Amino acid sequence: MRQFNAAVIGAQTLVGQEFIKLLEERAFPVNSLRLFASDHVPAGKKLFFKHQEITVQELLPQSFHDVDIAFFSSGPEVSRYFAPLAARNRTLVIDTSSYFRSDKEIPMVVPEVNIEDAKLHHGIISTPNCSTIQLAVVLCPLHKLNPIKRVIVDTYQSVSGKDAAAIEELNNQMKQVMDGQTAVIRVFPHQIAFNLLPEVDVFLDSGETREERKILEETRKILRSPEMAVSATCVWTPVFIGHSQAVHVEFTHPMPPEEARRILSAAPGVRLMDDTTVSIYPQPWTVAGTNECYVGRVRQDTSHRNGLAMWTVADNIRKGAALNAVQIAEEMIKREWLSPKG
Amino acid sequence: MRQFNAAVIGAQTLVGQEFIKLLEERAFPVNSLRLFASDHVPAGKKLFFKHQEITVQELLPQSFHDVDIAFFSSGPEVSRYFAPLAARNRTLVIDTSSYFRSDKEIPMVVPEVNIEDAKLHHGIISTPNCSTIQLAVVLCPLHKLNPIKRVIVDTYQSVSGKDAAAIEELNNQMKQVMDGQTAVIRVFPHQIAFNLLPEVDVFLDSGETREERKILEETRKILRSPEMAVSATCVWTPVFIGHSQAVHVEFTHPMPPEEARRILSAAPGVRLMDDTTVSIYPQPWTVAGTNECYVGRVRQDTSHRNGLAMWTVADNIRKGAALNAVQIAEEMIKREWLSPKG
Repeated sequence: MRQFNAAVIGAQTLVGQEFIKLLEERAFPVNSLRLFASDHVPAGKKLFFKHQEITVQELLPQSFHDVDIAFFSSGPEVSRYFAPLAARNRTLVIDTSSYFRSDKEIPMVVPEVNIEDAKLHHGIISTPNCSTIQLAVVLCPLHKLNPIKRVIVDTYQSVSGKDAAAIEELNNQMKQVMDGQTAVIRVFPHQIAFNLLPEVDVFLDSGETREERKILEETRKILRSPEMAVSATCVWTPVFIGHSQAVHVEFTHPMPPEEARRILSAAPGVRLMDDTTVSIYPQPWTVAGTNECYVGRVRQDTSHRNGLAMWTVADNIRKGAALNAVQIAEEMIKREWLSPKG
Repeated sequence: MRQFNAAVIGAQTLVGQEFIKLLEERAFPVNSLRLFASDHVPAGKKLFFKHQEITVQELLPQSFHDVDIAFFSSGPEVSRYFAPLAARNRTLVIDTSSYFRSDKEIPMVVPEVNIEDAKLHHGIISTPNCSTIQLAVVLCPLHKLNPIKRVIVDTYQSVSGKDAAAIEELNNQMKQVMDGQTAVIRVFPHQIAFNLLPEVDVFLDSGETREERKILEETRKILRSPEMAVSATCVWTPVFIGHSQAVHVEFTHPMPPEEARRILSAAPGVRLMDDTTVSIYPQPWTVAGTNECYVGRVRQDTSHRNGLAMWTVADNIRKGAALNAVQIAEEMIKREWLSPKG
């Protein structure tokens, strides 16, 4: 089997570290792995890959010379500057940042939804926002059989969706509150311990957050439904890993819950976890560290005859980011759409 | 001013203790206060009201003899048996349990919405579920001007909505998880610390929970809109006090966010807290212990031209239960609809 020279850009971010873990765990055909720092963190740190120490290097324009595939997890500014440079070096970029998602020339891919779009790349493939990935994986198999007209989704997002500092902040604040102290606020705009913050990413003039706007735009793009009505409210919850979503879908025709369950139980990347008689439904605490998009509480939406309500949970660092990008590369290799530079 | 002999049934529950606190804090015209145990907790405990010790008594059929007004916070079974007995003794019952809510003969009242219904009582007045109260207070002023056709609400509920044992469980589990131990599960069906559970109250055959069904039925009843389309997903979050809701409303005509803000800022019982330029929106941590229904994130719902999206938070023990009941009594006294037995 062909081996690839891989690189992780932003190796010290939560998503970067998950890339390293996944490339090892899934036996990705790695010839060499290079790790690059993001702009926030200095280079020099040593990380382990297959029991081998790798020093994190500074990312430079010439860094992509012998890299076949680069996984970007360093935010939009790094991707904006370095991804085109990499592509010009014939390095395939799989970018988890938001920078290229709205670019019509750049495919945005979730393997279970539109792997065929990956073939159309010109060196860069983007992946949707974590909330959109999880939503699209669950909606796609239903949408194919009964076109979706409207989706309302309210999210219950874990602090890991922000960054490692947010995890530390939740940890610290929990201790502070339990000790009767005032919570120290650094990363979030307000206390997150024992609290809820309906402010994921920045606010736009429309009153939406950018996260809510991303869900609208990216869901339409990836499901190729530019007219689909989408609305979201996105909320940080005091959970470490795993994004949850309450989803209300309006279809073209009625979608009986039993039919939806049958479709979802056979859908790629989806794990149906739905038995209310014994309190079985997905929960972020148990889903963290796993690979599927879990769905439960599948039932008639009582507000519309063609409606379906659901509850979904996925590991936002895995399927919501790193895993989805690695799966794109794996599927492309399997289909022989990707070769080492040679 | 006339003074009343008041009683709290279920004095040791979270809501019962809030009743005692509110009757003192709001200088309710109390002549005497009697406290009764719920069936779960033995009588005999001494509680304080205005620096005076009151022993919690066992509730008996003859307990209502000289009670003018009884606040019930002891669950549906106690209300089922004792509320009609009290009413037959000419004691006015204000019942926070679910038992009488669907009874067409018994008014269900939120003062800001339908205080005039309180006049129609035959000895018993019920109050809606905490989630419905908070929703109805915010929807009512909008609905009066532009009838609501459909509401989708996803809740982020605090553990105090279950009971005092649930607060203790969240506290204990937080310590256990922070200490690297396994969380001990007693009250909730699964771990609640750093987790989310889409199971508030029991599951019905339809796949809904009873809480979700209550929101549908009670919102229709209290807004006198039996045709209103309502759908809810209800979720326990690791928050102590304060229920939050992501609300998506479809009106008959467009409802510009500025107009909604203007209406809400003048609405009784509502506090508008909405300035995204400086991250101002309601949060359960700061709303706990206060009396209003707070609303923020007021914006166009992007999935419908007549749509409005909002985020609401209220103290579920106060406005969601005890305060709402005390306010009903206060308004009735002000209007001279309620007199001591004399």
